[in-house]
Amino acid sequence: MAVVEVTVVPLGTGTPSLSSYVAECETVLNRYKNLKYTLTPMSTVIEGDLDVILEAIREMHEVPFKLGVKRVSTHINIDDRRDKKLTMEGKIEAVEKKLQQRDL
Amino acid sequence: MAVVEVTVVPLGTGTPSLSSYVAECETVLNRYKNLKYTLTPMSTVIEGDLDVILEAIREMHEVPFKLGVKRVSTHINIDDRRDKKLTMEGKIEAVEKKLQQRDL
Amino acid sequence: MAVVEVTVVPLGTGTPSLSSYVAECETVLNRYKNLKYTLTPMSTVIEGDLDVILEAIREMHEVPFKLGVKRVSTHINIDDRRDKKLTMEGKIEAVEKKLQQRDL
Amino acid sequence: MAVVEVTVVPLGTGTPSLSSYVAECETVLNRYKNLKYTLTPMSTVIEGDLDVILEAIREMHEVPFKLGVKRVSTHINIDDRRDKKLTMEGKIEAVEKKLQQRDL
Repeated sequence: MAVVEVTVVPLGTGTPSLSSYVAECETVLNRYKNLKYTLTPMSTVIEGDLDVILEAIREMHEVPFKLGVKRVSTHINIDDRRDKKLTMEGKIEAVEKKLQQRDL
Repeated sequence: MAVVEVTVVPLGTGTPSLSSYVAECETVLNRYKNLKYTLTPMSTVIEGDLDVILEAIREMHEVPFKLGVKRVSTHINIDDRRDKKLTMEGKIEAVEKKLQQRDL
Repeated sequence: MAVVEVTVVPLGTGTPSLSSYVAECETVLNRYKNLKYTLTPMSTVIEGDLDVILEAIREMHEVPFKLGVKRVSTHINIDDRRDKKLTMEGKIEAVEKKLQQRDL
Repeated sequence: MAVVEVTVVPLGTGTPSLSSYVAECETVLNRYKNLKYTLTPMSTVIEGDLDVILEAIREMHEVPFKLGVKRVSTHINIDDRRDKKLTMEGKIEAVEKKLQQRDL
């Protein structure tokens, strides 16, 4: 299980708005039933088997090309921990727990 | 107004757990009353004036050093749009709106 | 043909030095005879078929785990352009040409 | 002394070519006489005092806006090590030395 962040950025589109490309990428992700994902203001974060995630990202990367874009910049950050199960929720909870202990 | 993503990663700590460093960085951010921020599973996303955000990040980058770490890797992604007001909430809403239109 | 930047960062190693891990990752890349690559001060940049590059990166990502590391953070930036052939050399030459024209 | 990688990406330009923007950013950097920098196929890597580097990057980030771009995505990776002097050359030499030892 890994947690992976991805942003797929179309270049040279002629408009500064990117939301329609992001929406189309989310639609691709939605077909991967074994992956959990969440949209953040800067990226999509995905949780699941690393190889399945990379397969999904490979497909997301093609989305802007299918919509006519000539150049795509895709950023991927993999967080892979093997001494304990890594989840999106668990990562945030670990920080919040530390913040609560600090406030006591 | 910009939206900026940051991760401050201490290297060589001897433990794979990073949550205590992240919590300490959040505490720094919490003092910047003119910034909004949210914790994602992979980063912290900050909204506000770009120069104030960069000042806050500069301070966050020092946190692991103060805790004895010898090497810090900090990743910053700036999204700066000047033809319309950019907010964390607005960015997510724009994608969700596109997804809803797609479903109609 | 794509140009892809990768950094494989072992976390929690107990030492701030990472060069032995980077060297081991380069050794993996060296076996991919259809890929060109170059080491920069911050990353490895690879040129070739995108699917082959991603296969190589998948293998590089395993290197620190094989050396006993418990958590690995891997960053991948894909630059994929399909209206013209993208090469590492060509990208730098395009910028240098623009700088020379500016100096005239 | 830190080593910092930066890419300044203009969005929505109408053309997939970015080299003229990169060249203009290099011109800004060239005025910072206390910084060393090198162009890689994916980024610019800068060596020097962290605060001076961040000041230079802040100025580079404005370049596309001055050229009429409406949205700019800037990526910054800071590598800051305080137990020994970090240089661009030293980082690459450390890896090459490990590779040579491996070959013996």
